[in-house]
Amino acid sequence: MFDYLIVGAGFAGSVLAERLAAAENKKVLLIDKRNHIGGNAYDHYDNEGILIHKYGPHIFHTNSQEVFNYLSKFTEWRHYQHKVLADLDGQQVPVPINLTTINTLYNLNLSSNELEGFFAGKAEDVKQVRTSEDVVVKAVGRDLYNKFFKGYTQKQWDLDPSELDASVTARVPTRTNKDDRYFTDTYQSMPLNGYTKMFENMLNHPNIKIMLNTDYHEITDDIAFNKMIFTGPVDEYFDYCYGKLPYRSINFKFETLDKEQFQRTGTVNYPNDYAFTRITEFKYLTGQKHHKTSLVYEFPTANGDPYYPIPRPENAELYKKYKALADQSDTYFVGRLATYKYYNMDQVVAQALSMYKKIKAEITIKPMHNEAAA
Amino acid sequence: MFDYLIVGAGFAGSVLAERLAAAENKKVLLIDKRNHIGGNAYDHYDNEGILIHKYGPHIFHTNSQEVFNYLSKFTEWRHYQHKVLADLDGQQVPVPINLTTINTLYNLNLSSNELEGFFAGKAEDVKQVRTSEDVVVKAVGRDLYNKFFKGYTQKQWDLDPSELDASVTARVPTRTNKDDRYFTDTYQSMPLNGYTKMFENMLNHPNIKIMLNTDYHEITDDIAFNKMIFTGPVDEYFDYCYGKLPYRSINFKFETLDKEQFQRTGTVNYPNDYAFTRITEFKYLTGQKHHKTSLVYEFPTANGDPYYPIPRPENAELYKKYKALADQSDTYFVGRLATYKYYNMDQVVAQALSMYKKIKAEITIKPMHNEAAA
Ligand SMILES: Cc1cc2nc3c(=O)[nH]c(=O)nc-3n(C[C@H](O)[C@H](O)[C@H](O)COP(=O)(O)OP(=O)(O)OC[C@H]3O[C@@H](n4cnc5c(N)ncnc54)[C@H](O)[C@@H]3O)c2cc1C
Ligand SMILES: Cc1cc2nc3c(=O)[nH]c(=O)nc-3n(C[C@H](O)[C@H](O)[C@H](O)COP(=O)(O)OP(=O)(O)OC[C@H]3O[C@@H](n4cnc5c(N)ncnc54)[C@H](O)[C@@H]3O)c2cc1C
Repeated sequence: MFDYLIVGAGFAGSVLAERLAAAENKKVLLIDKRNHIGGNAYDHYDNEGILIHKYGPHIFHTNSQEVFNYLSKFTEWRHYQHKVLADLDGQQVPVPINLTTINTLYNLNLSSNELEGFFAGKAEDVKQVRTSEDVVVKAVGRDLYNKFFKGYTQKQWDLDPSELDASVTARVPTRTNKDDRYFTDTYQSMPLNGYTKMFENMLNHPNIKIMLNTDYHEITDDIAFNKMIFTGPVDEYFDYCYGKLPYRSINFKFETLDKEQFQRTGTVNYPNDYAFTRITEFKYLTGQKHHKTSLVYEFPTANGDPYYPIPRPENAELYKKYKALADQSDTYFVGRLATYKYYNMDQVVAQALSMYKKIKAEITIKPMHNEAAA
Repeated sequence: MFDYLIVGAGFAGSVLAERLAAAENKKVLLIDKRNHIGGNAYDHYDNEGILIHKYGPHIFHTNSQEVFNYLSKFTEWRHYQHKVLADLDGQQVPVPINLTTINTLYNLNLSSNELEGFFAGKAEDVKQVRTSEDVVVKAVGRDLYNKFFKGYTQKQWDLDPSELDASVTARVPTRTNKDDRYFTDTYQSMPLNGYTKMFENMLNHPNIKIMLNTDYHEITDDIAFNKMIFTGPVDEYFDYCYGKLPYRSINFKFETLDKEQFQRTGTVNYPNDYAFTRITEFKYLTGQKHHKTSLVYEFPTANGDPYYPIPRPENAELYKKYKALADQSDTYFVGRLATYKYYNMDQVVAQALSMYKKIKAEITIKPMHNEAAA
């Protein structure tokens, strides 16, 4: 009899498996329908021996010391500050928009102070900020909106920014200095030997059994367990009884080139040209040295694995209905798919660690079935 | 309810899982106590991104077209003929002993015909060939025996060749031409993207569930299955009721050097110097290009994972007693550990394929429990 059946071996499921097995001495069966652990953070060596991320580039960054310390039990780190350029009008300029971006794009020589005035001069007067378009146009004006946001958003979501909630683009800041890091978090590091190795260390415990290639529907009748922790899509769990929660997906196209380096930064965005949104060159992220180099192109698409919850009010409403069911259920729901929220990895780790604390408190109050019997 | 619980995800277990799932539409649960599939043939990328074999160098070679064709369903191949040198008296000479070996070692310029005379002149007259020592001394004389066999055997088995069955060294041939391939099989190739990738393809079937980190004792009470196929150590299965079957083990020491190449062939044997028996440089085996290179040193040892059944008559006798139990049992026993025999990979595949045919015949005659019910 397993104490917990955990569905999904990504960050959410693996953190809970580790905590319950190692700290609470619970017997855990961790399953995933894919043939590997790690969820969307899974990395592996491609046929040329280059470490790649199967589900698109994953860069770890967090402000949470708790999350960073927790993961540090399972990996060493390599400092890495991600940089992104946008390929625009035949040049490549830093993203998020900073002083260099503007000076390069408009052939200017502004100072930081002058840049604020530049943005102010471009900004449009938007009375009521409701959509993504409103946010950007109000901050930096229509020209920069057209260059950086309109096309990229159209590709990424198949929606015009005017159709998207203001909250979506609120995340894209501008900077008046030359800071060209994509993230500004305190901790920016990659697991030294990759994500999969980190997951292996996390799950390397005698109380944790791992079953792959396994959808939970296939085994719940055959395998005895006390409680389920679910990190898959919440609508799937409830048989889509209120309809499907909409997701945006991505087709990843991988390519290996017979040269050492392809582009100037880890990622280059293509806001307006081509069907893909961006190209990432993995060796920047991993620090690997190799005489060849592997890239991934991202082509957003409507169909495929559920990656990005689509941030529209009606979807949030639909999720609320599922959440009501989840709250009444005996199963615990954790992670990006189970809570229908675009979380970064560190946020999922934090969510899983709080869920662990909640479960721990419950165990302490009312012992589980098999403990009472013992 | 699983039709089969298969213990051990090496060649024996994986071939049977694949056949029963894909050809007989059986539901299979494949488990391994290690945290990976592939058994002793498992390979993975080390921290420097070099593909290595975790349990020592594995070179695939076979004369069986059936085995080669079967595995070709799951991998492409890279032609590779393994070569081995022995580091002796300050020089490195081909193994098995060939024309080059003798001419180099004794500074001669013999032809193939003359070499036969050379061996004849060295050979000792041994009346009754019983031990390993007898075999070698009778074929090539005491000097070559001392150089190539005595020390190596002592290290490998911690036994003098005079204590070892004649059959052990019967496998080491000499050649009168310059053929310096270690093997002479018709098919000599390595899985193009490694063994683990080949196993992944083999096991990528919806009827196959894989559970890792799992000793079968831990789950037989919790998980319902019809029949067991066991590929672990047969004495363990019967709780060592007649005592332990002796095995020789190896400590592997891995090393990565900051240069492209270390030695002249895939493997160099050290028959007399150092505590290790041989050094293997993986890039020869895998064909990988990398600016660094990874090696493995093999230190034979009495304790550790069971690798080599020790070829002594009393051990064969002890195995016979376990085999009698196995023959009466409802469980199927397949593979190197379950049949206590030093099999190469291709031999294990062949053994598993015949076991599959046997099981298939049984299924056809008397349908299994769950089919009768259907
Ligand atoms: C393209 C892309 C890029 C990203 N880049 C970053 C980044 O740079 N930095 C960052 O911090 N975050 C990034 N993320 C987010 C990151 O991937 C997630 O935060 C994290 O993977 C979520 O972990 P999780 O465990 O909640 O979900 P997942 O990793 O998705 O794991 C859920 C698992 O559940 C399994 N599952 C689902 N249903 C079932 C079922 N019925 N039965 C069995 N198993 C099931 C799935 O196979 C999956 O493996 C990115 C995401 C995407 C899509
Ligand atoms: C150092 C070395 C070098 C070799 N080189 C070559 C070579 O060059 N060419 C060649 O053809 N062959 C080579 N071999 C032989 C090759 O490794 C074997 O033929 C092959 O691995 C045997 O497959 P198997 O499935 O029978 O056993 P294994 O690969 O040993 O698989 C058995 C599996 O069962 C698992 N298991 C055992 N007990 C339990 C339990 N209680 N519960 C759950 N799981 C359990 C084990 O963890 C293991 O993964 C070499 C072997 C060694 C040791």
